[in-house]
Amino acid sequence: MTVRYHTPLRPDEQVLFGISAPQPMAIADRVRFAELDVLNHVNNKSYMTWFESLRVWYFDELCTPYLPVGAPRPRTVLRSAEIRYMEELKMAEDYVATACVRAFRNTSYTLDQQIWSGTQRAQYSCVIVLMTPDGSARMPIPQVLRDLFVSRDGAVFEG
Amino acid sequence: MTVRYHTPLRPDEQVLFGISAPQPMAIADRVRFAELDVLNHVNNKSYMTWFESLRVWYFDELCTPYLPVGAPRPRTVLRSAEIRYMEELKMAEDYVATACVRAFRNTSYTLDQQIWSGTQRAQYSCVIVLMTPDGSARMPIPQVLRDLFVSRDGAVFEG
Amino acid sequence: MTVRYHTPLRPDEQVLFGISAPQPMAIADRVRFAELDVLNHVNNKSYMTWFESLRVWYFDELCTPYLPVGAPRPRTVLRSAEIRYMEELKMAEDYVATACVRAFRNTSYTLDQQIWSGTQRAQYSCVIVLMTPDGSARMPIPQVLRDLFVSRDGAVFEG
Amino acid sequence: MTVRYHTPLRPDEQVLFGISAPQPMAIADRVRFAELDVLNHVNNKSYMTWFESLRVWYFDELCTPYLPVGAPRPRTVLRSAEIRYMEELKMAEDYVATACVRAFRNTSYTLDQQIWSGTQRAQYSCVIVLMTPDGSARMPIPQVLRDLFVSRDGAVFEG
Repeated sequence: MTVRYHTPLRPDEQVLFGISAPQPMAIADRVRFAELDVLNHVNNKSYMTWFESLRVWYFDELCTPYLPVGAPRPRTVLRSAEIRYMEELKMAEDYVATACVRAFRNTSYTLDQQIWSGTQRAQYSCVIVLMTPDGSARMPIPQVLRDLFVSRDGAVFEG
Repeated sequence: MTVRYHTPLRPDEQVLFGISAPQPMAIADRVRFAELDVLNHVNNKSYMTWFESLRVWYFDELCTPYLPVGAPRPRTVLRSAEIRYMEELKMAEDYVATACVRAFRNTSYTLDQQIWSGTQRAQYSCVIVLMTPDGSARMPIPQVLRDLFVSRDGAVFEG
Repeated sequence: MTVRYHTPLRPDEQVLFGISAPQPMAIADRVRFAELDVLNHVNNKSYMTWFESLRVWYFDELCTPYLPVGAPRPRTVLRSAEIRYMEELKMAEDYVATACVRAFRNTSYTLDQQIWSGTQRAQYSCVIVLMTPDGSARMPIPQVLRDLFVSRDGAVFEG
Repeated sequence: MTVRYHTPLRPDEQVLFGISAPQPMAIADRVRFAELDVLNHVNNKSYMTWFESLRVWYFDELCTPYLPVGAPRPRTVLRSAEIRYMEELKMAEDYVATACVRAFRNTSYTLDQQIWSGTQRAQYSCVIVLMTPDGSARMPIPQVLRDLFVSRDGAVFEG
C-alpha cells in the first residue's frame, strides 16, 4: 500500500488503516524520532501535536474559506480536552489522525479526534471556543460554519 | 517575594501563588519563550510538559524511594487524562504546578494537577497504570505506596 | 505537482523543489503549526528536529541494514554541528530535507544537510561519532559503511 | 548549596557550577523529563531551547530596557549558529546557561553561550541580526546597545 501523507484520505483509504467508521477528515503522517521518550515509544505529549496539526488545518482549510469575503476571521481557543490512550506507537510507524465536529453551541464546538494505525491508538475530544479576532470576546459561530458542521460532520446543535 | 523554583513549596508559600487549598506537592517554574505560540501566549501543549515534569518527579522522589530495597520498580503508563484551560499564561510568568493522588484502585491511581499563577490557570486529572518493569503486565500498587497515598494525599481506595 | 512525503526522492523530484545538486538522500515533509513561534514563522529549533529525523532514518535504513548479521550495532552521538539560516519558512509549506556524508575518519563522519522549498532555506553540517552499543567507547566505522559512504555519497576519507 | 534558579548568578555563584571564567549573564535551571530521548540522556535539541531562553531574556531584560523611550524595538533574527557537545546531561541535573556578546558589526552581533554542570557540557556561538520591528530591513545596532556590549561584555567591534 502506498500511503498518501498530508492529504485528506478517502473513506476507502481510511479503512486500510483500520478505521471502522470513516471520519470527515483524516490525514496520515509518520512517527518521528523526536516524538519518542526514554521508554522508546511515542510519548503521550506527541499525540497533542498531531491533534493540533489536524485541528488547525481543519479550521483553516475546511472552515474559514467558506466565510464571506471580508467577514472577521474568528480566533479559536482550546477550552478543555480529554484523551484516552489505547495502544502505544513505535518509531517510524504510519498513523492517521482524524477529526469530526460532534456537536456545537452558540460560541463553541466539540471536536472528536482519533489516532489509528491498524488498530485505534487514542481517542480524544475537545471543546473549542470562538473568539473575536482580537481575542477580547466570545463570537457566535457564523451560520455558514454551523451549516457545514451539520451537513459535513453530522454535528448536533446543543442549544 | 523571592520564589524558590524546582523545590517543594510549603503550604504558606503555595498561598502566595493564590492556591486556595495547598496541595501535597507544588513546584514553581517560569514560562519559557519556546512554550509560546503564534498567539504570543503559552500554547496548550506546554502545560502537558509541566504536568509531566512534576508527575515524574513525584513518583521518582516521593514514591519509589519508599519501596523496599530490591523490590521491582514499577513502570508508570498514562492511561487517560482530561484538562480544563481557565486563563492564559504569558512570557516569563512564574507559575506553580501541583499534584495530589485523589484515588487509587488495585493497579492504577488518579492524579489531580493544577497550574496557578495568582489565579488558577488549568485543572488536570489523569489515570496512571502501574506496569511490571518490562512493561508486559499490570502490577498491583505496593502496600507502602497505598499507605503513602492515603496518609500524605488523603487518597481514597476505589476497590 | 503531487508531493511524495516520507519517501526518498529521486533526483528529478528533488529538482522540482529547487535543489540544484541532487543529494543521496532527500525526504519531503510539511511545516506544522507546532513548529511556528510568536513571529509566525518556523522557529529556528524546528529545523533541528527535521535534520534529526532524516539523520536517524538515514543511519537506520541506509546504513545499519548493510552490517553483517550479528555484528554490533553502533550508537551514534552528535559531536558538533553548525547551521546557517538563509530564508524563513511559513505555516503549511512543503520542504525537503537532504543528507550526504561528505567525509569520514576512523570513528566519525561529517554529514551535510540542507532544507529546500523552491529556494534553499538552511545549510547544516554535523560531526557524528560512532560508539560501542553500550556507549562506553568509540567504535571504528565498519568497512561496509566506509564503502557505502564512498560509493553512494562520494565521501572522502580524512585519515 | 542552595541553587537560585531563573535569576542572574553572581561570579562567585557561577564558580560553584565549575565555570572557570564567569560570564556577564548566567542562569540556572534543571533538566526535565521531556528533554530526554531514547538514550535516557538530554537530547541535543534541548540545548537549543536553553540557549534560546537565555538569549531572549538577555535581549529583553538586559538590552532593550536601555533603549530611549519611544525608540523602535528591534526584532532579532538568528542568522547562524555552531555548537560543540562536550559531555552529556542526565535527568534532573542542575545546569547553568551563560551568555556573552563577543563581537558586533553594524547590524549584527556574535553571542557566545555555554552550558555548565560541574564541568562544561556544551559550547555554542551564534550570530544575531537586528531587523526593523516589521522585519523588512536590517537595522543598525543602536549606540546605547553598542556601548553596553563593550562595557558589560567586553565585546569587540568588527567593523
